[in-house]
Amino acid sequence: MILSTPAVVNTLTGPPVRILIIILVAVALTALLRLAVARGVRRLTRLPAANEHAGENARVSVGGPSPRRQQRLHTFRSVVNSTIGVVVGGIALIMVLSELGQDVAPLLASAGVIGVALAFGAQSLVRDIISGLFMLIEDQYGVGDRVELGTGGGILASGTVEEVALRITTVRDDDGRLWYVRNGEILRVANETQGWSRAIVEVLVAAGSDVTAARDVLAAITADLRTDERYAAIVHPDQAESRVEGLSAKGAVLRWSVRTSPGKQWTVASELRRRALDEFAAAGISLGE
Amino acid sequence: MILSTPAVVNTLTGPPVRILIIILVAVALTALLRLAVARGVRRLTRLPAANEHAGENARVSVGGPSPRRQQRLHTFRSVVNSTIGVVVGGIALIMVLSELGQDVAPLLASAGVIGVALAFGAQSLVRDIISGLFMLIEDQYGVGDRVELGTGGGILASGTVEEVALRITTVRDDDGRLWYVRNGEILRVANETQGWSRAIVEVLVAAGSDVTAARDVLAAITADLRTDERYAAIVHPDQAESRVEGLSAKGAVLRWSVRTSPGKQWTVASELRRRALDEFAAAGISLGE
Amino acid sequence: MILSTPAVVNTLTGPPVRILIIILVAVALTALLRLAVARGVRRLTRLPAANEHAGENARVSVGGPSPRRQQRLHTFRSVVNSTIGVVVGGIALIMVLSELGQDVAPLLASAGVIGVALAFGAQSLVRDIISGLFMLIEDQYGVGDRVELGTGGGILASGTVEEVALRITTVRDDDGRLWYVRNGEILRVANETQGWSRAIVEVLVAAGSDVTAARDVLAAITADLRTDERYAAIVHPDQAESRVEGLSAKGAVLRWSVRTSPGKQWTVASELRRRALDEFAAAGISLGE
Amino acid sequence: MILSTPAVVNTLTGPPVRILIIILVAVALTALLRLAVARGVRRLTRLPAANEHAGENARVSVGGPSPRRQQRLHTFRSVVNSTIGVVVGGIALIMVLSELGQDVAPLLASAGVIGVALAFGAQSLVRDIISGLFMLIEDQYGVGDRVELGTGGGILASGTVEEVALRITTVRDDDGRLWYVRNGEILRVANETQGWSRAIVEVLVAAGSDVTAARDVLAAITADLRTDERYAAIVHPDQAESRVEGLSAKGAVLRWSVRTSPGKQWTVASELRRRALDEFAAAGISLGE
Amino acid sequence: MILSTPAVVNTLTGPPVRILIIILVAVALTALLRLAVARGVRRLTRLPAANEHAGENARVSVGGPSPRRQQRLHTFRSVVNSTIGVVVGGIALIMVLSELGQDVAPLLASAGVIGVALAFGAQSLVRDIISGLFMLIEDQYGVGDRVELGTGGGILASGTVEEVALRITTVRDDDGRLWYVRNGEILRVANETQGWSRAIVEVLVAAGSDVTAARDVLAAITADLRTDERYAAIVHPDQAESRVEGLSAKGAVLRWSVRTSPGKQWTVASELRRRALDEFAAAGISLGE
Amino acid sequence: MILSTPAVVNTLTGPPVRILIIILVAVALTALLRLAVARGVRRLTRLPAANEHAGENARVSVGGPSPRRQQRLHTFRSVVNSTIGVVVGGIALIMVLSELGQDVAPLLASAGVIGVALAFGAQSLVRDIISGLFMLIEDQYGVGDRVELGTGGGILASGTVEEVALRITTVRDDDGRLWYVRNGEILRVANETQGWSRAIVEVLVAAGSDVTAARDVLAAITADLRTDERYAAIVHPDQAESRVEGLSAKGAVLRWSVRTSPGKQWTVASELRRRALDEFAAAGISLGE
Amino acid sequence: MILSTPAVVNTLTGPPVRILIIILVAVALTALLRLAVARGVRRLTRLPAANEHAGENARVSVGGPSPRRQQRLHTFRSVVNSTIGVVVGGIALIMVLSELGQDVAPLLASAGVIGVALAFGAQSLVRDIISGLFMLIEDQYGVGDRVELGTGGGILASGTVEEVALRITTVRDDDGRLWYVRNGEILRVANETQGWSRAIVEVLVAAGSDVTAARDVLAAITADLRTDERYAAIVHPDQAESRVEGLSAKGAVLRWSVRTSPGKQWTVASELRRRALDEFAAAGISLGE
Repeated sequence: MILSTPAVVNTLTGPPVRILIIILVAVALTALLRLAVARGVRRLTRLPAANEHAGENARVSVGGPSPRRQQRLHTFRSVVNSTIGVVVGGIALIMVLSELGQDVAPLLASAGVIGVALAFGAQSLVRDIISGLFMLIEDQYGVGDRVELGTGGGILASGTVEEVALRITTVRDDDGRLWYVRNGEILRVANETQGWSRAIVEVLVAAGSDVTAARDVLAAITADLRTDERYAAIVHPDQAESRVEGLSAKGAVLRWSVRTSPGKQWTVASELRRRALDEFAAAGISLGE
Repeated sequence: MILSTPAVVNTLTGPPVRILIIILVAVALTALLRLAVARGVRRLTRLPAANEHAGENARVSVGGPSPRRQQRLHTFRSVVNSTIGVVVGGIALIMVLSELGQDVAPLLASAGVIGVALAFGAQSLVRDIISGLFMLIEDQYGVGDRVELGTGGGILASGTVEEVALRITTVRDDDGRLWYVRNGEILRVANETQGWSRAIVEVLVAAGSDVTAARDVLAAITADLRTDERYAAIVHPDQAESRVEGLSAKGAVLRWSVRTSPGKQWTVASELRRRALDEFAAAGISLGE
Repeated sequence: MILSTPAVVNTLTGPPVRILIIILVAVALTALLRLAVARGVRRLTRLPAANEHAGENARVSVGGPSPRRQQRLHTFRSVVNSTIGVVVGGIALIMVLSELGQDVAPLLASAGVIGVALAFGAQSLVRDIISGLFMLIEDQYGVGDRVELGTGGGILASGTVEEVALRITTVRDDDGRLWYVRNGEILRVANETQGWSRAIVEVLVAAGSDVTAARDVLAAITADLRTDERYAAIVHPDQAESRVEGLSAKGAVLRWSVRTSPGKQWTVASELRRRALDEFAAAGISLGE
Repeated sequence: MILSTPAVVNTLTGPPVRILIIILVAVALTALLRLAVARGVRRLTRLPAANEHAGENARVSVGGPSPRRQQRLHTFRSVVNSTIGVVVGGIALIMVLSELGQDVAPLLASAGVIGVALAFGAQSLVRDIISGLFMLIEDQYGVGDRVELGTGGGILASGTVEEVALRITTVRDDDGRLWYVRNGEILRVANETQGWSRAIVEVLVAAGSDVTAARDVLAAITADLRTDERYAAIVHPDQAESRVEGLSAKGAVLRWSVRTSPGKQWTVASELRRRALDEFAAAGISLGE
Repeated sequence: MILSTPAVVNTLTGPPVRILIIILVAVALTALLRLAVARGVRRLTRLPAANEHAGENARVSVGGPSPRRQQRLHTFRSVVNSTIGVVVGGIALIMVLSELGQDVAPLLASAGVIGVALAFGAQSLVRDIISGLFMLIEDQYGVGDRVELGTGGGILASGTVEEVALRITTVRDDDGRLWYVRNGEILRVANETQGWSRAIVEVLVAAGSDVTAARDVLAAITADLRTDERYAAIVHPDQAESRVEGLSAKGAVLRWSVRTSPGKQWTVASELRRRALDEFAAAGISLGE
Repeated sequence: MILSTPAVVNTLTGPPVRILIIILVAVALTALLRLAVARGVRRLTRLPAANEHAGENARVSVGGPSPRRQQRLHTFRSVVNSTIGVVVGGIALIMVLSELGQDVAPLLASAGVIGVALAFGAQSLVRDIISGLFMLIEDQYGVGDRVELGTGGGILASGTVEEVALRITTVRDDDGRLWYVRNGEILRVANETQGWSRAIVEVLVAAGSDVTAARDVLAAITADLRTDERYAAIVHPDQAESRVEGLSAKGAVLRWSVRTSPGKQWTVASELRRRALDEFAAAGISLGE
Repeated sequence: MILSTPAVVNTLTGPPVRILIIILVAVALTALLRLAVARGVRRLTRLPAANEHAGENARVSVGGPSPRRQQRLHTFRSVVNSTIGVVVGGIALIMVLSELGQDVAPLLASAGVIGVALAFGAQSLVRDIISGLFMLIEDQYGVGDRVELGTGGGILASGTVEEVALRITTVRDDDGRLWYVRNGEILRVANETQGWSRAIVEVLVAAGSDVTAARDVLAAITADLRTDERYAAIVHPDQAESRVEGLSAKGAVLRWSVRTSPGKQWTVASELRRRALDEFAAAGISLGE
């Protein structure tokens, strides 16, 4: 009885039967993979979780005119489908040859070389997706956040996040340009909308003027701003200060910093400068060049 | 009966028969691959989907004079065809030797080394195509869009897209130069023609002038522009503001920004500057140096 | 007896039994791996050891609104779970086929190629974690330290550490931006809050003035500062000096340095400059341009 | 009969016979490869298709004095020939040893290491040729075109193409220098001689002058140029405009752009500047500094 | 007798016995590796040889508060221990399966892929340690030396060495920041405290003044300095000179260099500048701008 | 008879005999390889073909004093010889062990790892030589040519070629420094001595002066130069022109270019400037600042 | 007799005997390798050939105080010795297991992964040594030469060579800093002390002065210098010239170059400038600004 089991197995798995099975599985796998790739790509490029909160900033025109999109999908599918067909077909062919007693080592080696080239070429795709997965789970940024995405030395893009997908992040900058950045290239992320921001204003008080008086004026402006109904909600009550940063015959550079709500630093800094201009004029403090 | 199946298979697949089959398949495969590569390259370098909407910007002269193109194709084909011939022939030869009982490990190892060199060399080609596929399906840009293509630190090319192929993207810049950029090198893409743009004008109001009055003038200009028939359609009704960006003895820097239709920011900014010049002169506000 | 042992083993490990075991183990392993990955990722992205000392700087809003976080976790899990399912399922399938006598070398080769692509893509993840582990054990920085993280040539981020995880470090800079930096990209770390800092002030003494007198004034200011109750605790009693760093018709550049408690250099430098301004005026020493 | 076939085969392929065959094939292959490499290198470095249209710019002196060229070829051949001899000889030796029953795994491993070093070293050669092949078929540039060849961040060379070979492109720049650039290093190509170019002139109109009048003068010059017989053929009838690009106390910067025939932008821009100088003087508009 | 030896061996190494041995060895190895890694990491991060000479610059606060250090060690150990457990357990499992007659090739291939990812990720760790070993034996720097550590193009850190470990070097810079630099990233090292240093002072002698007289003054100052008890020990008696480095209407640039004891160049240069100021004034030589 | 052949072969190739042969071959190979490496290195570093035309620029002192050279050769040989000894000895040892029935897989794997490290480390050597071979056959430059060698972004060296070897190129720059550059790092080569050069002179004609008159003066100078016996041979009769390159209140920038013989552009440009100075003064045209 | 040979061999190489031999060889090899590594490292880091000519510039203090050196050697040896012990022991263990009939593939695979990580990490060490070997044999520089070592874009170190070892080169720069540079990172070397140098002085002759007269003065100075006993030996008799390099309203820039003995260019240039100042004053030629 113990011996019969392998026998039955052997019968069911003799070369002709096995060849048939290989072909059937290959056909089924091709169809399956085509479906899976189509679904996977949709997920990679348009992540539902992030897409549903886009709100008023949503990219209505990204899909483009329907015929173009249709055509693109058609092109994409034809490339992917023929690739899958060639790969699965090739593997099945080699397995059939192997069943027929052929030594397939040379074929395997040749296929392996193509595979290595593909693997090398695809590594940045894998890296993008792994990076995307971790950015997602670490919640580095979400749709609507203002971010700066950078490499080691430079900046990739900065602006408001419009879409977070597994392969790429889409950011709209201040000039209205829509940036597509590959997640794997993002080595550092600055999220400007978490916790608080800081408005920083540099003022050069001219040589003859009284620096201490100037600092008092700046402190008064900060206090005033907190009682102004338009700014009270976005200017934090503490953490304001002015430092003397530079010293020359032209005067002293004051670095005046005020903590604000996230993303409000530019509005507040603008108001601070406007008021400083008026108050300095009133106090007789002149600005240096 | 069970035993006879392998026997028949064995007969059909004895060395001489198998050698014959190998040679036949190699010949067929060579012809097939030559066709496939020719077709694949055509697809890679001239993507139909993107090419049909080129319209008036179409590259009529890219194909160049017919004889040159003919000659190039001839060169290309002779290189590709001999490569395919050598590769398929080499694999077939090793398989035949293996059938004859030769130990082909040394040959396989030697061929493997050449294969690895090829695979390394071809990896950037694969990366270009994978990147191209995803750019296509993510619809990052289409023919006629104004884009900026960049690496981590620098800019590869900026201008109007003329052609989107799987391996390269063709962009014409403002100086009329036609840029060919490999898709795999594009780490970030800025599309300037999706949604909206922003015209940004920096004005230095001289020290003695009234900054608040200057900002009122700018606001008035923006309002005027929206009622001007030439600009009403391209200037967005909201999102205009002017901030105080800098402060010195020379005056205050105002950063004036107005949202426009995509790609219209330069035209609008030019008009804004022209009007500001006139209105400031009328209002007695002088510009700083 | 010696012979019977293999026999029993053989019975227990005949193909049908083994196939059953493979399937059972695969199912169990899938469930186990899903748990383990979920737990591992939690550890990677939110290290308990570092998180518990965050104190008043804690990122209360990082987790974001609960539904978004929920959705992200859902997306993440579905991606990871299907990946694990495909990988374990694939290995099990190949092992079953191997049990059935199929030559699985072509399948193995194909799977190997995918694996190599994954391994290449995942290498930066591994590097990040190894770097994170060593940073942790070397105690390069902790939550609340002021650090500068750099690559070979540039700066990745600088500010106050908010979180130290195995894959990334989170730093908040002076402008309030929250930086996420991958540990493997950090080639050098500057910790500004270990031991002491140094306030450095450059003063240009105008051509006609007495340089020796100016240096005496600076020395007097340093001595004064140490007796001032507001600064006595943060200014170190020794290691203060002023050097002549440059010489021109405009005057002599003095480089005045004072050792302070860690992180207090900016406050002290500001006070030093303020006092120098007053004392120089009192001593009749004029600043150069 | 079925059994006899392998027997005959076996007889024909016994060790002594096989060793003889190996040696014969190795000798033949060495000769063949030497021929093939000589021919291949000639093709790589001097592509006939591109070379025949060089016309008046042809590099008459590149071949150099005949004896030097002769000597170089001699050196090259001796290196290549001995390399081929060593490689083929080595493989044949290992195969013979294998036939004699020697375990050749250690030898194969050693040879493999040398092979990997060669493959790594040769990868940039392969990449150059693959890039060259695609540049050729994509018709990115031809002999006589003005191009700019760049990497991601910088410029490799710019000038007029003198030769397009599979491994390198030869470009002569404006200073007369002949640049040899490896095709695989070219990440982006700007072709300046396809379709049209644009002459761009920046003019700073001094503060007191009338900007609108200045723009009218520029428009008049453009119109005039189109009726001038020397320029009518190279200045395109439409697409000319002048924008206000900058605003300061010194005046307004006008950016004046005119479309021209490819490569004629510098000539046209020179003429535009010359005329603007005269016309502005005539119209009483002064240039700013 | 000869035959009996393998029999005994076979009995002792039958599958059940071997499985038992594998499990026992795995358990023992896990415990051993955990000990070894803990010890190895301690050695890597805190090298005794270098640590014992730290003297007054010793990092007393680096270990941080004891609970934090405790917690870090706990985290580190739990990560390392589970990693070791998984790896050794996995290898043992595969060996047991192999003993049971299972084809473990698919499992090995899968594990290999993970291993390759780990190996890639760990290569920079290995490179750091190898570099550290050679820096150590080449005695490039020791604790207390002033060094500059650089990459090919930029500077990694400069300051005083505080600790030399196998993986990282710790340097404190002039601002009091403590730099942690990975040894493998250090491509070049400048040790400023070996042999001698050179104080270099650039002086611009105004156009009307006598250059030869100015050089005589500089030579006199150098001679004076060597007789000054405060500087005699640190100024080398020879190798002082002044060169004319630049020529313009503003005057002549003199480059004055004096050899000093290592690390004393800034103190000496400061004194040289102070004296030059006085002596030039006395000699009626005016400085240029 | 057919059967006897393998028998004879077997006798001749039994383990003891084979071990003897392995040892003998290893000894012979070691001696042979030492000779071959010595000869190959001589060829790599001192290519005869290029060396014989060095002429008056020949590096007479490069070989240095004979004893130093002798010592260097001694060091080099001892390193290379012991390396060869270890490698060949190791392979022979493994083969002998294999003959004795030892399982050498662990040894092979260990040796393989060392081999891979060597292969990785040697890849840049291979790349240098391959690049050198192609530079040689493409005749990119020869001894005596003025070249600029560059990477993608920067310049490696520029000057006159002194030696072209397979691994490095030696160039002497204008300051007399001798540059050794590795061929594989040279991504682009500019040869300044093939065909022609161009002398380019930029002149700023002051605001009040007549630009057309200035251009006539320049044209006259060019014509004069061609009739001057000292310059007639090196100034090309055509291709001279002057363009208006810039426009400001300071005047108009003229870009004056004249084609010359290769390498004569600096001499000609100097003469052009000298004459322009005189002629402009004579014509009453003043230069701008 | 033929058959008996293998029998004897088999007896001598049965498992127990072989296990014994493996252990003995492993012990011997460990001791041998420790000796060899110690000797190899000494050779790598302190090359006798180069060290013996250091002369007066010799690094007397590099060895540092004896106890530190002793301690370093101790640390180094303990690391290297335990590494060798682990590696040789591991290989021996696997071979013993293999002899006992254990399937060692999983162990080999695991060890291979560690090996690959080591090989990757060690590749830069190998590259350094290969580069060092070729620098040595090509005699690029010796102890006492002034060199500049560079990468593709930047400078690694410049100064006087103090030591040439196989892994690193030691250079002392003008400030007295001792640079350690890894040989493999040196992509280009400039040797400033081979053949000749060139002193280059730029002079701006003011607008009103006579350029031809100024050039005559420069020529006279050069002639004078050759007759001056202090400079006759280091100024080459020919190859001196002055070119007009720039032209503006401020005057004409003269580029005056004189060939000197190697390394004497700075001394000569200083003297040339000093004399030019005097002679121009005497000739009434004024310098421009």
